Order: sequence, then structure tokens, then C-alpha cells
Amino acid sequence: MKIAIINEISAADKNADILSALEGWGHQIFNLGNTSRNDTPGLLYIHTGLMSALLLNLKAVDFVVGGCGTGQGFLNAVMQYPGVFCGHLLTPLDAFLFARINAGNCVSLPLNQGYGWAGEVNLRQIFENLFTPQAGAGYPTQRAEPQRRGRELLAQVSQATHLKMAEILLRLPEEVYHPAITYTAFRPVLEEAARGFPDMQASLDKLA
Amino acid sequence: MKIAIINEISAADKNADILSALEGWGHQIFNLGNTSRNDTPGLLYIHTGLMSALLLNLKAVDFVVGGCGTGQGFLNAVMQYPGVFCGHLLTPLDAFLFARINAGNCVSLPLNQGYGWAGEVNLRQIFENLFTPQAGAGYPTQRAEPQRRGRELLAQVSQATHLKMAEILLRLPEEVYHPAITYTAFRPVLEEAARGFPDMQASLDKLA
Amino acid sequence: MKIAIINEISAADKNADILSALEGWGHQIFNLGNTSRNDTPGLLYIHTGLMSALLLNLKAVDFVVGGCGTGQGFLNAVMQYPGVFCGHLLTPLDAFLFARINAGNCVSLPLNQGYGWAGEVNLRQIFENLFTPQAGAGYPTQRAEPQRRGRELLAQVSQATHLKMAEILLRLPEEVYHPAITYTAFRPVLEEAARGFPDMQASLDKLA
Amino acid sequence: MKIAIINEISAADKNADILSALEGWGHQIFNLGNTSRNDTPGLLYIHTGLMSALLLNLKAVDFVVGGCGTGQGFLNAVMQYPGVFCGHLLTPLDAFLFARINAGNCVSLPLNQGYGWAGEVNLRQIFENLFTPQAGAGYPTQRAEPQRRGRELLAQVSQATHLKMAEILLRLPEEVYHPAITYTAFRPVLEEAARGFPDMQASLDKLA
Repeated sequence: MKIAIINEISAADKNADILSALEGWGHQIFNLGNTSRNDTPGLLYIHTGLMSALLLNLKAVDFVVGGCGTGQGFLNAVMQYPGVFCGHLLTPLDAFLFARINAGNCVSLPLNQGYGWAGEVNLRQIFENLFTPQAGAGYPTQRAEPQRRGRELLAQVSQATHLKMAEILLRLPEEVYHPAITYTAFRPVLEEAARGFPDMQASLDKLA
Repeated sequence: MKIAIINEISAADKNADILSALEGWGHQIFNLGNTSRNDTPGLLYIHTGLMSALLLNLKAVDFVVGGCGTGQGFLNAVMQYPGVFCGHLLTPLDAFLFARINAGNCVSLPLNQGYGWAGEVNLRQIFENLFTPQAGAGYPTQRAEPQRRGRELLAQVSQATHLKMAEILLRLPEEVYHPAITYTAFRPVLEEAARGFPDMQASLDKLA
Repeated sequence: MKIAIINEISAADKNADILSALEGWGHQIFNLGNTSRNDTPGLLYIHTGLMSALLLNLKAVDFVVGGCGTGQGFLNAVMQYPGVFCGHLLTPLDAFLFARINAGNCVSLPLNQGYGWAGEVNLRQIFENLFTPQAGAGYPTQRAEPQRRGRELLAQVSQATHLKMAEILLRLPEEVYHPAITYTAFRPVLEEAARGFPDMQASLDKLA
Repeated sequence: MKIAIINEISAADKNADILSALEGWGHQIFNLGNTSRNDTPGLLYIHTGLMSALLLNLKAVDFVVGGCGTGQGFLNAVMQYPGVFCGHLLTPLDAFLFARINAGNCVSLPLNQGYGWAGEVNLRQIFENLFTPQAGAGYPTQRAEPQRRGRELLAQVSQATHLKMAEILLRLPEEVYHPAITYTAFRPVLEEAARGFPDMQASLDKLA
């Protein structure tokens, strides 16, 4: 599975924990946000939300692991875009249920609030339950069909309520898009992925 | 404060707890979703999400209290729409921080997962911290200004990424909008609120 | 591993969840407390605490799984006796750390507070982390030695502060010991185990 | 209310948070354990457990606030002694229920695990619910009488199962009692309190 990690500056010191907790499962990891408290520019959730949405809409990755101090900021930022389905996950049980019922493509982790000693063990247990072959299998399993239908309708709603990403890019404040799309670790992945999407390519060219 | 409670069918038996936990603060409460397991139709998060977004966009209420079994479904449904800023809140601390930092207009509560004995006490403590004069005051307070700026940008992003609600209504699958906008307890409040918004009125007339 | 489940009446309806969550690991299970809301007598934590301590002191089992509404009552009851080291565990992470650091012989579970939908999944994840070959291995592992020494001293303290179980039995109020030691499902296991402990046998004979 | 704070070395950096969270309620605070990571000697839970039990048995304070990395170590250490009734409290709801149902005299807080940003806000909310005139009032209130009876029996059990504190002191390993009873901040309070208890005074004299 292709998984991007996108940290904002406030939780950049947890980036190593996330990276380590994702090791050993055979996933292909893209570590594209802040990775240390000294990184410049320091990304805010408003930036990491856009970066995550771009990766998902360009199909550069299958899943984005993000978060912020409480998890609420990134959650609200990334959910502004089409095609993003994000869980706010604190425990392995949250991950177990989100994978089976919601089968989303994004997670927002609280990385300062409640994040203490052994936090990396909790992350590992969360990821173990989140990235499972049981994704979408339903819980309880006899509810699999209505839960699948709920996801299908949600995806239709997401397309009905949002503009296309290529249009969105041209409507965002510069303060939002510029630090996001020019971030050093992120830019090459974005450019590579945009090659398959001429409308996105065109929008990115206009913003250059 | 004008607060709407919008429950889906799976958590309708928690409606009385929510109602009771919101008593005594002087709020004006609108109880517009399912209130019992036997209600028909049983609303799904795809419906309660739309109903909540309509109330907020029509300024019929200041805040919507929603939720589902885990809180993740309603969260993802309501966040598809413009102008909605929703917290996934489990504890009084979550509410304390969300009110000060994010100052959103919606909460998604987990109403079956982890909801046991004394759940109504937890709800009361959550609401006590959520509906506070300190909303938007920042936490810690010296971060108030960047946090305010974050909310401002988020609101701009929300307008940039979404279509207008009146257009959205006409693009949704009937399976989504019909049970929502015709729900008995909800319909009169919707109609009353739509009077101030000719474009919404027009869209609702087309769907009638 | 020999594991006893000892439920009080308030959480007897969770007994089936516990039993099911302990299945499939090859443990030998002794289900010796209330197993249904209609059981008579209804055991209180004051009884299940004594029953659990007797099983551990008589080496009838290696571990006791108990609890009550919040977990605090059984915890305080069972901890009154010598040789009992009990965790109050809510999440898989709690279990992971308790097994490695404290390596106790008892757990008190909150079985009404916060126990909702999918509670049995959480139990299973807790047990998976609790009953591990890593018990006592330390966390982090470089702290294994001081943590082992802490457990050793704690065991010495427990012997220094308590009377012997055989004496204790004769000093307890009848309201405490009688419902406990005569409970139908429990009595035969108690009698069998007491055979190896003449002082306990003598005390039980006196109370008969 | 007279409240002692007794921190072990591993969580000494949280001492200031506890102190601050207890401010403003009119309590009389005794800060008697480690207060900084550099304190010598560094106290372990085996020491803070004894110190706490001494304070409670000598009636030097009404309540002890303790804890350790996970809360499980201090809990198990302090519960080895007579007359100690200790909650393991993580949330305001835990405190609300423990105060009303168990009305104990001690709390063990997890001060590293799950202790992150805004942890001091959570502490304040816990203490607000813990130190309430409703202590012992029962929850729900119609269960007040059996819950009161449970506490009464528990107190009797505690006396039946333990030796007297004065005897216990003479049976503990030196590694346990010496760092505890000689700790600089603690010693004067201990000596003052022991004056009213000739048997304790005698035991302390023997250990001098």
C-alpha cells in the first residue's frame, strides 16, 4: 500500500514515531511534510490538508496519515476537498471500526493532546488495525451491505458538493496553496503525479 | 444559543440523554432527527449530515449536535458541505480545546461505541466545555491570533472548494436528499429558514 | 494459562463477551462468578474481590479477570488481600504496558462505564496484549531490570503488610465471606484448591 | 481539605501541573514528593506508596494525589496498606463516579502514558469532579445506600486483612522504608503527624 505521512510543524517531533510505527508491514511510505521542529517553512494544517487532498485526488498514494495537536484541525482542513474520507482515530478499536465500516483513505491523529510516553506503541496498534485486509468488510459483518451502500452514497455526495480539484486550486488564497505546493519534499511527488492529469497540470502551471 | 440535535436511527435511543444534557443552560433546542428506535423513516448519517448542513447554511441554528455509532460516519457526511466545521469529541478536554482553538459549529459524538453507563454525565461535561464564552479565545491564549487566522483561512477554503448549497441540493442523489428534506420534524424548520434564501427556496421547490 | 473470570452481578451481562474474547488462545478458563443478570445470589465487588484473592493465593489459577461498573470497586476490593497485583485496564496500550512493566496477576475491567458497542472487540485486543510471552520483559526494554526489582519489592511489601489468607478468612465479616465461599460455581474449585493448603482448609472448615 | 501531592521521580516534571491544577479551590496542599527530575533521591512508586499510606493512616491529610508513568505502579504500591482506597482516574467522568460511588482517599494518575499537551487542563477537570461536596452521594443517587454499605464493608475488610501500620513499618525491607521516611520534604510532616500515634512514634524511633 502507498501511504503518505504529512505532518504539520506543531507535531513534527512525532514524525519519527509515525514512520517507525509504519515499518515492517511492506507499505511504501512517502514522508512529505515536516519531519522536524526546525523545518522551514513550518506547515500549518491548512497546508497539510491541501497537500493530502492533492495526493489522494492525483492517486499518488492510497492513504494519507496526517494529524495535528488535537487532530481536529487537520481533520477539518483535509475534509474541505473532494474524495477525502478521514477518520479521527485515537485507539486501536477506533481503527478497527473505521477500517471495516468507513474504509476511508485518510486518518487525522491527535499528536500532542494525549500523546505521551509509549505513544508510538499506540500508533503501531492503530495502524495494525487500520491497514487490514478486512477494510470495508463491515462491522458487524451482517451490516456489511448497508455500510457499503453508505460509503458509495458518501462518495457521490462528495463529487456533488465540491468543485474539481483543478478549479479549486485556482480559487484558494495564496497563503494556503503556496507553502503547500512548493514544499521541498512534496513538490517532486506532486509534479510527477500531476503528469497524468492535464487539468491539474494546467492549474499548477498557472500558479507557478 | 440555538442548537439543533440531529440523531440518526442507530443512536436514536441516546437522543433523550443529549436532550437532558443540554438542559438548564438557557439554550434554545431544536430536536429535529430521530428520537426513538421506532421512528420512520430511520435516518442514516448520509441524511443527518445533509440536514445539519442545511440548518447551518440557512442560519436556522448556531450549532448542530450530531453523531452516529462511532462518530466517524456523521463527521464525514456533514463535512462534505460548505461552511461546516465539525469536531469529533469524546471527552470534556476535547470539547475544551475544540471550543477555544477551532470554534466550529458542529459536533459528531460517538453514541454507541464507548457509550455506556453514565454516558449522559460525560455528554453534560462535554457540552459544559463546548458551549463557553471562551469559544475562539485560543489555547494556550498566546496562540489566539494564529489560531484565529487558521479559522479564517479554513472558512475561505470551505467557500473555495464547494458549490453553493442551492446548487448542491440539485446535484444530490434522491436517496440522499429526499428522506432528509421531507422528515416530519425537520421540514417545517427547513421551510421557515429557507424563506430568507430565495435560491434555496427555488431549489427546494424544484425537488418538491 | 489458567484464567478465572469472576463477574459481579452489575456486569454479569458482559460475562459472555469476556468469555468469547478469551477464546482461541488455548487458555484454560474458569468461569466462576455471576454469568447472567438473574443469577442468585448477585455477587458484589466485596465478594468477587475475596473470591479472586482466594483463587490466586491457593494457586488455583494464574490470573483473574474481574471488574465492575467502573472497575474501581473490584480493584479496591481485590487489592485488600496479599499476593494480588491488579491492573485497571481500558485499552490495548494499558494492557501492553501493564504486562511488560507490572506483570500482575489480575485485571479489573470497567464493564458498564464506557462499555458500549464493539466492547467485545476492545476486550479481545486487551487480552491479546495482556497475555503475552513478553510479560515482565520491561518497557522500554532497557528498563527491564529496575522494573523487575520493583515487582520483587512489591511482592515483599505485600507479604509484610498483610495477614495470611487463612487468618484473614476468620476475621472477615460474614456478609463478606459467606456469599463468596458458598457460591455454587465457585465452591467446588475452592475446595479442590484448598486441599493443598491445610491452614486454609482448617479455616474453611471453621466457617462451614 | 488537606491534600498531599506525592510524585515519584519518573513524573516529577508533572508536579507543577498538579500543583497548579489544585490551586484556587481553597485546599491546603502538602507537596511532599519529588518536584523536579533532578531531585535526590529519586523516589520510586514503592516509596511514594508507603509515604502516602503513612500520611493517610496518621491522618496528616485527607487525600493523597499520587501517580506514576501509567498509574498502575503507584496504585498497586499504595493499595498494599490498610485504610487506603485509591482510584485510577483518567477523565473527569472517572473522577465524578469515583467521588460519588467509591469516595476514596487517594488517586493514582497516569502522568507519562497519555499525558500530553493540555494535560494540566485535564487534571483540573479531574480535580473539579473529584473534590466535590457530592462525595459519597452515590451514582445514580437511588443506589446511594448499597454503595455506602459497600464502602463500609470495604473499610472493615481493609482492617481485617492488614497488620497495623506500626507493625508494618518494622517488617518492610530497608530499601523500601528508608528513602521514604527520610525524604527531606516529607520527614518533618511525618514526625509532626506521628506525635499523636505513640505506636507509630515507637516504630519510627526504632528505624532511625
